[in-house]
Amino acid sequence: MSTAAKFRAVVLLSGGLDSVTLLAMALDQGYDCYALSFDYGQRHGSELHAANQIARCYELKEHKIIQIGLNSIGGSALTDDRIAVPEEAQEGIPVTYVPARNTIFLAFALGWAEVLNARNIFIGVNAVDYSGYPDCRPAFIESFQTLANLATKAGVEGHSIRVHTPLISMSKAEIIRTGRDLGVDYRLTVSCYSADSSGAACGVCDSCRLRKEGFAAAGVDDPTRYRV
Amino acid sequence: MSTAAKFRAVVLLSGGLDSVTLLAMALDQGYDCYALSFDYGQRHGSELHAANQIARCYELKEHKIIQIGLNSIGGSALTDDRIAVPEEAQEGIPVTYVPARNTIFLAFALGWAEVLNARNIFIGVNAVDYSGYPDCRPAFIESFQTLANLATKAGVEGHSIRVHTPLISMSKAEIIRTGRDLGVDYRLTVSCYSADSSGAACGVCDSCRLRKEGFAAAGVDDPTRYRV
Repeated sequence: MSTAAKFRAVVLLSGGLDSVTLLAMALDQGYDCYALSFDYGQRHGSELHAANQIARCYELKEHKIIQIGLNSIGGSALTDDRIAVPEEAQEGIPVTYVPARNTIFLAFALGWAEVLNARNIFIGVNAVDYSGYPDCRPAFIESFQTLANLATKAGVEGHSIRVHTPLISMSKAEIIRTGRDLGVDYRLTVSCYSADSSGAACGVCDSCRLRKEGFAAAGVDDPTRYRV
Repeated sequence: MSTAAKFRAVVLLSGGLDSVTLLAMALDQGYDCYALSFDYGQRHGSELHAANQIARCYELKEHKIIQIGLNSIGGSALTDDRIAVPEEAQEGIPVTYVPARNTIFLAFALGWAEVLNARNIFIGVNAVDYSGYPDCRPAFIESFQTLANLATKAGVEGHSIRVHTPLISMSKAEIIRTGRDLGVDYRLTVSCYSADSSGAACGVCDSCRLRKEGFAAAGVDDPTRYRV
């Protein structure tokens, strides 16, 4: 078990463009992948549907969906119906920021990694396009890794846990090209904050805008179904 | 709002002896308290019932219970029916340890603190009686505080978030004496890992043993209803 543990990874899978690329990269690097998604009352429930479809396309050890009452905290346009999703880029920290979301997601990933005796966690944070989110910065990730090694049995026993963020410095275009080279089918992914039940994207929100620009810059055909 | 924020605190309230003492201390220090409990499929559901009763006895700004699927991760006698709760003290990290539990609880507290614009989080960890739990150590708490200030808008804007652990170095007897002096009614609290639906404690598990010894050492009458 201790040899295999080195190659076991918990991969956070939202169902978006970044996280499926992340998963393809982790698999390509030879990790045994345990994908973790969350049902947190997100507006874009189609994202979770996408996560399920993606999980079925890859050879995963397991795909777990954990229900968490993140919407009961509120405070974000993504979980609180009273806050509108903006259609234009914003200054500073956007209203689509979900308070402590990555801290919470990583905490659950850490718990599952501990049960699995896995030493690796993959998270698709990106500090380029989402520089407004405090919990996407390298300093945040380094700090979580330090915490992970203090919080767990594995850490106490001297086996370090590593938080992998291969996308952190990549542009959207680089992410898309990397995914294309690994055979990712981006039709399966949903980025839109306001996708409809069929998964069709609004075409105008911040996330759609970044996605469109990314495909254009990568010189890759955009397979997304946009309503606009 | 910014002046009041300094005096707003999210207090993690499990319904056990430690957390009610913690709440009494935070209120005594003049904080506006927002109590946070979790429904995570814990075996001792009576603990959650106790948290509700306690919340009604104090002047809280709000009491929130968040549902989290911690039991779907497994790995602990407290959330997994296949792992027996031991009746004697154990060497090393006990099987009642829930992987990453305090990391997860603190992450949610951080999210709510951010929405409330609160600068304080209280958690009743104790490094004396539970030295086998890696996530009860001072180094873990310090590390989480560092993370909290990197993870949040408040941190980015230079308002530091503080994680308060007033119980961390106290013996169980000191905690009980402190609570008694603050008028805590310990009949409301449940510590037992295997309490029955009426809240009666088993009297033999690790947690009951520590509680009994604590009351004896404090010289305070133990109001707990034990089955044994």
